[in-house]
Amino acid sequence: MPFLFNTIMNKLLTTLALLVSLAVQAEPRATGDLGLVIERESGSALIINTSTHKQLAKIGGLGDLSHASVVFSRDQRYAYVFGRDGGLSKIDLLQDKLDHRIMQAGNSIGGAISQDGSLIAVSNYEPGGVKVFAADTLELVADIPAVYNDGKRSKVVGLVDAPGQRFVFSLFDAGEIWTLNMNNPQKPVIEKFTHTGKQPYDALMSPEGRFYIAGLFGEPGLALLDLWDTAAGVKRILPNYGKDDEKLPVYKMPHLEGWAMAGDLLFAPAIGKHEVLVIDKRSWTLLKAIPVIGQPVFVMAQPDARACWVVFAMPDNNRLQLIDVKNLAVSTTLTPGKAVLHMEFTPRGEQVWVALRDDNQLVVYDTETLQELTRLPAQKPNGIFFSARAHKIGQ
Amino acid sequence: MPFLFNTIMNKLLTTLALLVSLAVQAEPRATGDLGLVIERESGSALIINTSTHKQLAKIGGLGDLSHASVVFSRDQRYAYVFGRDGGLSKIDLLQDKLDHRIMQAGNSIGGAISQDGSLIAVSNYEPGGVKVFAADTLELVADIPAVYNDGKRSKVVGLVDAPGQRFVFSLFDAGEIWTLNMNNPQKPVIEKFTHTGKQPYDALMSPEGRFYIAGLFGEPGLALLDLWDTAAGVKRILPNYGKDDEKLPVYKMPHLEGWAMAGDLLFAPAIGKHEVLVIDKRSWTLLKAIPVIGQPVFVMAQPDARACWVVFAMPDNNRLQLIDVKNLAVSTTLTPGKAVLHMEFTPRGEQVWVALRDDNQLVVYDTETLQELTRLPAQKPNGIFFSARAHKIGQ
Repeated sequence: MPFLFNTIMNKLLTTLALLVSLAVQAEPRATGDLGLVIERESGSALIINTSTHKQLAKIGGLGDLSHASVVFSRDQRYAYVFGRDGGLSKIDLLQDKLDHRIMQAGNSIGGAISQDGSLIAVSNYEPGGVKVFAADTLELVADIPAVYNDGKRSKVVGLVDAPGQRFVFSLFDAGEIWTLNMNNPQKPVIEKFTHTGKQPYDALMSPEGRFYIAGLFGEPGLALLDLWDTAAGVKRILPNYGKDDEKLPVYKMPHLEGWAMAGDLLFAPAIGKHEVLVIDKRSWTLLKAIPVIGQPVFVMAQPDARACWVVFAMPDNNRLQLIDVKNLAVSTTLTPGKAVLHMEFTPRGEQVWVALRDDNQLVVYDTETLQELTRLPAQKPNGIFFSARAHKIGQ
Repeated sequence: MPFLFNTIMNKLLTTLALLVSLAVQAEPRATGDLGLVIERESGSALIINTSTHKQLAKIGGLGDLSHASVVFSRDQRYAYVFGRDGGLSKIDLLQDKLDHRIMQAGNSIGGAISQDGSLIAVSNYEPGGVKVFAADTLELVADIPAVYNDGKRSKVVGLVDAPGQRFVFSLFDAGEIWTLNMNNPQKPVIEKFTHTGKQPYDALMSPEGRFYIAGLFGEPGLALLDLWDTAAGVKRILPNYGKDDEKLPVYKMPHLEGWAMAGDLLFAPAIGKHEVLVIDKRSWTLLKAIPVIGQPVFVMAQPDARACWVVFAMPDNNRLQLIDVKNLAVSTTLTPGKAVLHMEFTPRGEQVWVALRDDNQLVVYDTETLQELTRLPAQKPNGIFFSARAHKIGQ
């Protein structure tokens, strides 16, 4: 009897300990103020809280994150990480764990989540095309090879979601823009726009999901598709925008994700020049070129549209400049640290988080006072993504 | 020994059962797709999930909700309900319970949450003024009596948050607009704009938090404050907008919260007329008056700005009309049910939830196909608020 008693007691105590740990772990966590910070070299990501400025967890095993982007499920429970190596990782922000991970291609550049949150689309270089997965299981729903001309496959870039359960993307090698309607997941409907410009290399969507704009590597200008009037086809705008031979060498080709819309104004990094271009969205013409301290890479607008924050290519990547949107001039220069790579504003814009890759740090600023609020450690951080993105169109 | 054994076993089993129930209860819930539906007559609110279209809980004891509005904490865990009777209720969306409730005034009209989420402000009729509370404890932080002239107190209306930890509101009886800077909660800074127009009765903030516009009950026109240029003072715009004597009787004075911004266009219910007015935000002039089926009360823009949804005063309050933003004309008329009172779009706009007070129902539409997706029971619903509001400026 004492032996049996002890055995039973031990089992019960073990179970008890487990349950206590479960109950303690389960302190409710809301998801509105969470974010994911990408650590490029270690293939890991930090789950952070923007209210407490705390790191909540570190998730490893995410593969090659030398180029990575993130989207969030509509309930903000899951973050989907698109890695450079074709890996697609689904992270559970409530349980601090990697929920699921697949290798969906050999080489990938980005992804998007459908308007209703049910589908994840990934744009691939190799093999060139788009794959669409169920957001819950990561099972393949549709495979869209980017085939052009006599069966060649093109790299796919600039993939974004659009209203009406659509995705829009560009074919780098084909010079085409496609829309993909996934209203019926079993019957994807593709609309192709051909001869839209040589080598589209990236694209952006306007915040309401109407204008899709692709940058062209192979020729000057930008390709514009108005999703409210697809019958009008793709137009060329800003014919003088692009690489310019006589200028400075281009240290880093700016992403169009780094363009900023502030009201009717579009702020774009000039390629190779020390300028931020201001474009009037009503006429798609150049209003002004604002001199800045280096080659701009990302230009990001505060949620209140009052200022744009600019980060630079080497050798000026230790600095940040702010452009006053009302005066269209630089108002402030900050020196946060080494290799300023990426920024993310809190949803209502009271703070901005900045990734300092070579300082292994994140720095948080108050956008009103420009005071530094805190610094957090992070290993070679190269991307910051907050869960409020779940609620935005055209990510 | 057997007796002791049984006693210990019983205690252990009871503890086990409790812990199991705790662990089961604690199934993680994310907060990005939650919402609150106000049930006016029963003084209760439903917590709903917009992904599953399910009611998760019903919270009672919220007092007089004949006029109620809701804001959300920045982590989206808590909803703050402002009731007509001066009650301020804090609901825990993760634990399905009323977390805290205070009676902060005798008669109240609405509230707002500060940019950083730390403060809740309430606008009161009686006693006239604004009270500011700590968002976590609901303890009073600041009491701002709306005193004018020789010490009289004015009703306060049109309270919204603004960037820079500010609130903006209007004094109905005084004809004034005040800004309240709460950067230092111990030292609120008030800026007053006097003689801004007779009897401001409601106001709206543009989505980026720049333009504060108050409707005037006592004279025609609207009062406009540009928060990027407060030195310029308050201007009068749209001098012909207002009540018009020779028209139909006004069955319901439209709220300015029911105005819609879609790009450069502002859609406003005409007062007393069967028209929706389209205003050019660049010049603040009237572009067009669109004929509609009744007296409009709320005009709300889809998040993709493609359409505006219009609900009407009696006797046309069983209908909904859609305005195509591109063509500036009515495209569709729906008849969802009895007493269409309020609407809320899912954050990326794929669905709209509509409150049908006299059918005791909510109806959910697909905004693309206009198909009805589902109906849920709700007792005399008069307001729908989704947690994505946590991330918006000027609520």
